[in-house]
Amino acid sequence: MRGAIIHGPRDVRYEERPDPTVVDPTDAVVRTLATCVCGSDLWRYRGVTEVRRPTPIGHEYVGVVEAVGEDVSTVRPGQVVVGGFLTSDGTCPVCRHGAHANCVNGTGYDGCQAELIRVRNADGTLVATPGTPEEALVPSLLALSDVMATGWHAAVCAEVGPGSTAVVVGDGAVGLCGVLAAVELGAERVVAMSRHPDRQAIARGFGATDVVAQRGEEGVQEVLELTDGVGADAVLECVGTAESVTQALRCARPGTTVGWVGLPHVGELPQEHMFWRNVGLRGGPAPVRAYLPDLLERVWSGRIDPGRVFDSTLPLAQVAKGYAAMDERRATKVLLRP
Amino acid sequence: MRGAIIHGPRDVRYEERPDPTVVDPTDAVVRTLATCVCGSDLWRYRGVTEVRRPTPIGHEYVGVVEAVGEDVSTVRPGQVVVGGFLTSDGTCPVCRHGAHANCVNGTGYDGCQAELIRVRNADGTLVATPGTPEEALVPSLLALSDVMATGWHAAVCAEVGPGSTAVVVGDGAVGLCGVLAAVELGAERVVAMSRHPDRQAIARGFGATDVVAQRGEEGVQEVLELTDGVGADAVLECVGTAESVTQALRCARPGTTVGWVGLPHVGELPQEHMFWRNVGLRGGPAPVRAYLPDLLERVWSGRIDPGRVFDSTLPLAQVAKGYAAMDERRATKVLLRP
Repeated sequence: MRGAIIHGPRDVRYEERPDPTVVDPTDAVVRTLATCVCGSDLWRYRGVTEVRRPTPIGHEYVGVVEAVGEDVSTVRPGQVVVGGFLTSDGTCPVCRHGAHANCVNGTGYDGCQAELIRVRNADGTLVATPGTPEEALVPSLLALSDVMATGWHAAVCAEVGPGSTAVVVGDGAVGLCGVLAAVELGAERVVAMSRHPDRQAIARGFGATDVVAQRGEEGVQEVLELTDGVGADAVLECVGTAESVTQALRCARPGTTVGWVGLPHVGELPQEHMFWRNVGLRGGPAPVRAYLPDLLERVWSGRIDPGRVFDSTLPLAQVAKGYAAMDERRATKVLLRP
Repeated sequence: MRGAIIHGPRDVRYEERPDPTVVDPTDAVVRTLATCVCGSDLWRYRGVTEVRRPTPIGHEYVGVVEAVGEDVSTVRPGQVVVGGFLTSDGTCPVCRHGAHANCVNGTGYDGCQAELIRVRNADGTLVATPGTPEEALVPSLLALSDVMATGWHAAVCAEVGPGSTAVVVGDGAVGLCGVLAAVELGAERVVAMSRHPDRQAIARGFGATDVVAQRGEEGVQEVLELTDGVGADAVLECVGTAESVTQALRCARPGTTVGWVGLPHVGELPQEHMFWRNVGLRGGPAPVRAYLPDLLERVWSGRIDPGRVFDSTLPLAQVAKGYAAMDERRATKVLLRP
């Protein structure tokens, strides 16, 4: 088969690789219907994270089960499945409490930007769709693999509830999905902090009631004006820089908790905006499997369409062009079809 | 009247001061039945926090209402009252959400280690006892003013629930009250991390089922052994140093939130133990008024006796001896009687 391999900064190649096979009895092999490039893949692409040797890359997928090991009982060949960006066994003490991203037996993938994918812990990772999806549903199913589940995690960690006011810091694919999650969890008012007209439009399409284009202290003041001067009921941090975490904490009403899913490039956490203001910070990699059944139902029923965050589609063979488009900010998120 | 004034490091004097009076129509004046020295008072006593001018000190009290302003409607002269270490109006958007310590009109006190105390925002701060308390109940009522409410806040922030395993980092008065709070909130197993035999005994008296004497990495390993290798359901951080916050985060199961009430002398927050482990950090000054009615009922009914954290009682006139005893660790917490 063929798949993407990153060789170094700005050097992603689509190359011949050995076909993955069922190794452990808990494995599945999945034939990719769609995969995509993640903002976090850009760390290696941009040289922020070192690439020590040529490495298969990608961690999002929707596909068709090709083969399963003898211990796999919840999915079977021919089914269309979605899995999260990490595998989880679903049975360890951490998974049993719903924190699947921190499964004690969890693993990553050997590159999902590929025609075939080995999925370890198949039973604890994959969820089958109720049937063969229509083509138009594929992007939204793919979004569940990471960005939609991550935006959802932010909203859950921030305790978005019915009638609340939520603020979303960050207008990347995760932030936009955070807007959608906040709306689904009942927020009455959702403020998208976004400077880009095209992303503002998606945010409004997802149900954002307000857009704040300012950032930093100006953005905070704008949010305070919208929230009785005391801050929002729920704030979702979907960027991960020191500035964005500070902005998120400052936008939160005392007594609330910021949902933190922006992969941290934070430097020092600004605790002066935490303890004395009684604003908490909670989050991390999303436990995708915990949210998948619910989110899949929402997508399948047509209630949500997170696939709208994909603003570009390329053949998987042109994966390098996808990285370049996202690196140069010509695309928010690139979908790849084998 | 007379009251304590801190003049500088290790220089607390009991001196003549003007009698406080009702200034604003929302004020009350309270005659002190009992007050005490707080661990946080020691910051100034030890010179960690600068004392720029002679300053009345103390923020915990139980007393009898002496006078009230014309707008005060919930307490009246003659009633025995408890109030938290900060005043709160009870009506601002922050108080309405239960975060009274961050009241937009909140204030501190002009020294509660005194014979008389001016309490601003009396209606939003004070709670009257159902009658005149027996002498034996006074220490427990006084504990509600800060340490018991603070331990409770830690347990609430850590989401201690029925059947859970809770770990309490810190065995000062707040940590010991945290043990009591965790037990009251239904924890089945409560691990007190304490090196001092006398404090271990109080922790066990409050319902701790396990004691871990080790600290740092050794203490963490001990806790992991007690918790399926994955960490506790709820961790209460009641110290506030970089070491104790790290210890608390490392003892928490992924997906949980550490309740953080140790006044922060943290340096940098150890985010490496937060994001990637999905362990949150939430807390700050306790919203005493939010918890007071419930806690008062528990004390009044004899269900809890947080007053056991006081292991020394002195006449208020000997307040300087109380500071010295706590500074030299001859006492955990000193109660003062006018």
